[in-house]
Amino acid sequence: MLTKTQIETIRKDFPYLAATSYVYFDNGATTQKPEAVIDSIADYYQHSNGNPHRGAHHFAIAATDAYEGARARVAEFLNAPEAESCVFVRNATEGLNLIAYSWALEHLTEGDEILISIMEHHSNFVTWQYVAEKTGAVLKILRLDEHMQITDEELASKLTPNTKLFSITAASNVVGTMPDVKAMIEKVKRVCGAVCIVDGAQYVPHHAVDVQDIGCDFFVFSGHKMVSAMGIGVLYGKLELLNTMKPFMYGGEMIEYVYEDHATFAPSPQRFEAGTVNVGGAVSLAKAIDYLNAIGMEEIFEYESALTTYAYDKLKALDYVEVYTTDNARRSPVLSFNIKGAHPHDVASILDSYHIAVRSGHHCTQPLHRALGNNFSCRASLAFYNTFEEVDYFVDKLQEVRRLLGLESQ
Amino acid sequence: MLTKTQIETIRKDFPYLAATSYVYFDNGATTQKPEAVIDSIADYYQHSNGNPHRGAHHFAIAATDAYEGARARVAEFLNAPEAESCVFVRNATEGLNLIAYSWALEHLTEGDEILISIMEHHSNFVTWQYVAEKTGAVLKILRLDEHMQITDEELASKLTPNTKLFSITAASNVVGTMPDVKAMIEKVKRVCGAVCIVDGAQYVPHHAVDVQDIGCDFFVFSGHKMVSAMGIGVLYGKLELLNTMKPFMYGGEMIEYVYEDHATFAPSPQRFEAGTVNVGGAVSLAKAIDYLNAIGMEEIFEYESALTTYAYDKLKALDYVEVYTTDNARRSPVLSFNIKGAHPHDVASILDSYHIAVRSGHHCTQPLHRALGNNFSCRASLAFYNTFEEVDYFVDKLQEVRRLLGLESQ
Repeated sequence: MLTKTQIETIRKDFPYLAATSYVYFDNGATTQKPEAVIDSIADYYQHSNGNPHRGAHHFAIAATDAYEGARARVAEFLNAPEAESCVFVRNATEGLNLIAYSWALEHLTEGDEILISIMEHHSNFVTWQYVAEKTGAVLKILRLDEHMQITDEELASKLTPNTKLFSITAASNVVGTMPDVKAMIEKVKRVCGAVCIVDGAQYVPHHAVDVQDIGCDFFVFSGHKMVSAMGIGVLYGKLELLNTMKPFMYGGEMIEYVYEDHATFAPSPQRFEAGTVNVGGAVSLAKAIDYLNAIGMEEIFEYESALTTYAYDKLKALDYVEVYTTDNARRSPVLSFNIKGAHPHDVASILDSYHIAVRSGHHCTQPLHRALGNNFSCRASLAFYNTFEEVDYFVDKLQEVRRLLGLESQ
Repeated sequence: MLTKTQIETIRKDFPYLAATSYVYFDNGATTQKPEAVIDSIADYYQHSNGNPHRGAHHFAIAATDAYEGARARVAEFLNAPEAESCVFVRNATEGLNLIAYSWALEHLTEGDEILISIMEHHSNFVTWQYVAEKTGAVLKILRLDEHMQITDEELASKLTPNTKLFSITAASNVVGTMPDVKAMIEKVKRVCGAVCIVDGAQYVPHHAVDVQDIGCDFFVFSGHKMVSAMGIGVLYGKLELLNTMKPFMYGGEMIEYVYEDHATFAPSPQRFEAGTVNVGGAVSLAKAIDYLNAIGMEEIFEYESALTTYAYDKLKALDYVEVYTTDNARRSPVLSFNIKGAHPHDVASILDSYHIAVRSGHHCTQPLHRALGNNFSCRASLAFYNTFEEVDYFVDKLQEVRRLLGLESQ
């Protein structure tokens, strides 16, 4: 496991730790960035900036190399069979919407079923509500058991020959559940052969990914949750599927030929990358991948799991705290909780006064929160650059929060 | 007019000029970035990075301030009546697609007419082909006269009571034409009240904008063509129109309430900004606006116009060069041309060997190129940091290109 010394060395890479005294526990919303990633953006704009694929000159070629080099790094990171199956998007949300517009709206009809789970982020929930409304398809929802897991029985009971699309998160941003998406997809493919989507936004920052092993048709994630810049993410899709899909956005570089009355379109990934692309973002994502790989995704998962279990056990020991995180030790590093009798916004605000950054709200999962029996929660979401000492400080301060809110005597 | 000394001072702000000896004449594709813009991105990620609108803590608040501060700067830059009418998008292309999906596909029906011009970029051409195909609307195309202008008669002849959407570039990326979009929109509104869109991608970097004075319903532009980072652009829309439109992408932060079977949506701009936004990009755009404003948009237009006329006159004097740029002195700084008998890719490649970066190809305007009687051209597109000396060097080298291609004796 990553040692305390290794973590201390890693922490020196993150400028926010030099600039502030904050305990940053909002990594599920967005991570902080190491200097190497920040520098890679500046370096690109200083030395290699141009519009890729659009010119025969030095700058256009340098930008093309930077951009397509980043795509190759992404493909390797996901173990995608080829770079062309990796489309750069803005974020995971856009990846899901691209699938909705370019595949689902074109293929689903009345009576078809879309299967998701109650723990999906709004991006993997509202998008399919829209598709269902437009096509007449039915949205079906997998429920969680008391361990915040989806049982085999639950999956079997909701799968039918009409299930045409299955979209599931690989890691919940609230309850931390990491369903066995590979096993679920195997079952789905056996029963109905539905198109299978994995939302990897909360998974990719914490765990190695192999899209071929998972067996999904699509996989989406965001860069900014894995120490990259904002404004860049990836849609992986099986190439033969991508190349049958209609374009999403129309514009430059996604065409083959444009006549006055019609146009023909380039194959993936260009088909889905209309207009000038975000090379600076792609470069930062490639650097983030290099940075994480240098530490090791297995080491990151092991360390974060230990940190999460340490925090989970401490929170569970407090009788005034209600914890929503799964009790399964295979989980993503999110600790969702409420202090009984306190509004989570008050808790987060007071924690902020102690320089602890946690998020409060519905975390873009209103249906899940209703199922949990509340509307809002606090969430401490950890990263590999967090420490056991930070967890101690955070848990200690919860008692202070309680005192300041006058809840100690209750 | 900006003096030689002022330009020399400005050039010191651009790292590419210190790092290379290149004459960068591909600003129409993307501009280079001044150090202040590059630094603003690093500064954001080092000191203010968080997920805006999503937390009560220091980082979320700092990121919200940075992001909404940038939106306020954009609104001021466009003279938009309120910040909420400015939606951050990836680029102008996305802005046009957002209008297509959220307004046009919902409102146009068979027999309706969409009016564009033959000089539109593919993003303002193929997008409407798609809408026409889906809705049964008819795509009508304004032609250029021998001065590369759209005459009043041409507009009058194509406008009908069925025209429901009018979308026009404020500056051609190939022929440099800057139509009087305000006057055109006045006519369109009088004849048919169509929704009017202005593609400002090639206009905003060169000329002050006042969307209220122009009278358009929508206005789009990209940051990366005006010294900002890539991956950020703006859709301005009349607020009352934006707030009647369906969302484009579905996901976090664009919702109001999400139930299991339906959802309600936030007003503009959140309605159209699903998922984690690109704060680093928005910050760089605000800094780019500050940078351009400090020089002065009027000064920039005046200087670039003088530079363009100087280059235009030089090119027109060469009998072996065919120039496609409009002869109207009110034009954007693009010089599109071919050396007679030479393929533009060869011309650009040889110019690159002299460290002159020009673009060759169809410049995402295949229909325009067909109308011009060719498939490809070379394009030298200038910016305020270019100089008269660079123009001299470029024009001198054209003779060399001709010699190397063995065309001198022809």
